[in-house]
Amino acid sequence: MSAKTAELVKSADFQFGDAKADALELDCGKKLYSVNLRYETYGKLLPDGSNAVLIVHALSGDAHVSGRHSPDDAKPGWWDAMVGPGKSIDTNKYFVVCSNVIGGCSGSTGPRSVNPKTGRLYNMDFPVITIADMVRAQKRLMDHLGIKKWLSIIGGSMGGMQALVWAIDYPDAMESVIPIASTARLSPQSIAFNWVGREAILADSHWQGGNYSEDAPQKGLSIARMLAHITYLSDESMRYKFGRELQDSDSYSFAFKRDFAVESYLEYQGRRFTERFDANSYLYITRAMDYFDISARAGGDLAAALKSVECPFLVVSFSSDWLFPAAQSVDLVKALLKNRCEVSYCEIESSYGHDAFLLEVDTLGKMLADFMDNRLEAIRGR
Amino acid sequence: MSAKTAELVKSADFQFGDAKADALELDCGKKLYSVNLRYETYGKLLPDGSNAVLIVHALSGDAHVSGRHSPDDAKPGWWDAMVGPGKSIDTNKYFVVCSNVIGGCSGSTGPRSVNPKTGRLYNMDFPVITIADMVRAQKRLMDHLGIKKWLSIIGGSMGGMQALVWAIDYPDAMESVIPIASTARLSPQSIAFNWVGREAILADSHWQGGNYSEDAPQKGLSIARMLAHITYLSDESMRYKFGRELQDSDSYSFAFKRDFAVESYLEYQGRRFTERFDANSYLYITRAMDYFDISARAGGDLAAALKSVECPFLVVSFSSDWLFPAAQSVDLVKALLKNRCEVSYCEIESSYGHDAFLLEVDTLGKMLADFMDNRLEAIRGR
Repeated sequence: MSAKTAELVKSADFQFGDAKADALELDCGKKLYSVNLRYETYGKLLPDGSNAVLIVHALSGDAHVSGRHSPDDAKPGWWDAMVGPGKSIDTNKYFVVCSNVIGGCSGSTGPRSVNPKTGRLYNMDFPVITIADMVRAQKRLMDHLGIKKWLSIIGGSMGGMQALVWAIDYPDAMESVIPIASTARLSPQSIAFNWVGREAILADSHWQGGNYSEDAPQKGLSIARMLAHITYLSDESMRYKFGRELQDSDSYSFAFKRDFAVESYLEYQGRRFTERFDANSYLYITRAMDYFDISARAGGDLAAALKSVECPFLVVSFSSDWLFPAAQSVDLVKALLKNRCEVSYCEIESSYGHDAFLLEVDTLGKMLADFMDNRLEAIRGR
Repeated sequence: MSAKTAELVKSADFQFGDAKADALELDCGKKLYSVNLRYETYGKLLPDGSNAVLIVHALSGDAHVSGRHSPDDAKPGWWDAMVGPGKSIDTNKYFVVCSNVIGGCSGSTGPRSVNPKTGRLYNMDFPVITIADMVRAQKRLMDHLGIKKWLSIIGGSMGGMQALVWAIDYPDAMESVIPIASTARLSPQSIAFNWVGREAILADSHWQGGNYSEDAPQKGLSIARMLAHITYLSDESMRYKFGRELQDSDSYSFAFKRDFAVESYLEYQGRRFTERFDANSYLYITRAMDYFDISARAGGDLAAALKSVECPFLVVSFSSDWLFPAAQSVDLVKALLKNRCEVSYCEIESSYGHDAFLLEVDTLGKMLADFMDNRLEAIRGR
């Protein structure tokens, strides 16, 4: 099915929290008013409601998982290879929902939204949010859509963190959870990388205390993104993909412009990111990740923190992922087992590093499809 | 022996290259005139010249390896734990020499030196140098000091790269070479980290095309250093050293100032670095590392590139070093063995990451001392 003939996708908006009682309570103690969640749905919800699947996105993701908004779109949604009619997460079979996280910059309320109290952009007046805050907003959307129980909640990287919080805070709300290339707590190394990325944004003279206009801190944001990109790849994949190849010449320039293919790649990734992502959102979402530590809810005891969890898990990691190494998934699996949870765990052999959750479509897709099929059968057999 | 009673160390300057015929030829095709090399020596050269040891420093090192310049110095030289009277590299026994690399900012000619042609600072008119250029300057110092043959050339990280070039370009100039936590070619991942660090400096509005005055691009340089520091530690050592500990509080600030101990550490390291290092030097030295690929001299064939090597090697790597992983040392060892070189290789078990070459003083020191003793005996037995 080509892009031209495929059904086009529409995004929708869900608004809530205009009144005090309806506002979104945040972990920082503040409330968020007049919240918008941008979301997309794919496929049809069965009358028995059994086929609803929630996909939760990573740091730079958005609600647009699959397909195109217009036949002219250069690229489809960010997980189009995985989600769609006839694909591993088959939208002929499942009703798939994804919403942009709060704090984001792709339609949902974030730092570049208008603060209803002042009529001006929030910018740095936006409250510092957490992963649990993101999930709390998603739960509102679930209720709004009339979904009683998700068949699965699936998320890679920061999406896996959200999926975990769902399992703990709303244990009745899902039949299964699939955290991919994720963790139960952000490591100090990841906190450190986030810190350096944010410092690059804050140091950009265009940032202006967060109150930039059109002239955004693109350079700072691109540096943050280039740095993050290194952590998404692996040493091995970089050797394979770029090696020490030069980009435009047979010899070194003996200058500071880009010589190497890997430099050119980073430059391109950095620039492209600034065209679609907001610097303040980058600050807020990375901070939410820094603050993510499920075990902190039980004084550092991960198993105790997961006590409320009821549903089966499929936990997936990738062998060359050094940002969220397999050992962190294993920690999660052990803690779930301690709670006598049903857990399937797989470390997929891959050289793609953290990005493998977006790239290992065949291996990962088969695994997700079978796991979800099994869950669906289990429910129907009850 | 306390700092107060220990003999104080003096640095010296060696100048050369005022005349065209004496100027330093560079790989880029240019010549460097009126070169200064800042160096230090420790111990006494024996009349037979058998006990001279060259230490070559890493990216942010300098000529000041050991001891203090003044009794009031807060800190001794950068490898004081390893080098000194009665220490592993025993200056009662060996005559140790170390010079600041060209391109550096600790006394040797670099981008912040005066260009004799213009009477103004070089800044970005300084030629882009290579590791081989650094070594070529050191060879001049060797001749100036009247040293016929080094007993050992020892270097960690970028120092190991220089040691390798010495072995290839001046195979008669040493009895042994000890590259520690180093590589025969910089990996694309390291090139990528260097690129992002330099981008942070170039993006700093204080950089001014390299023509900054007192008001240097400290923020950009500190970001580059913070990033580099993450690569010097290991995931494991960061978990052990910082974990997710908060610095000044029991709870998150819900703000963007530093919360975590690891953030505080990076901030401190970044700031301290700007007090002693120059931004333009950082650009030039990281570029020299990017351009380092010994195998390129023989069309990518590392063994062929090492054909001229004659002396025995001790190659050391550290298990948790992910910047210059053990596998890169193993590649070097294999290529040396292919040339029937005498090679000892040890991967030291350590959680300190790349920094281990500065921290694993006991294990590494014992190894160096024994290896050098053996070399000395071998020479004397000839």
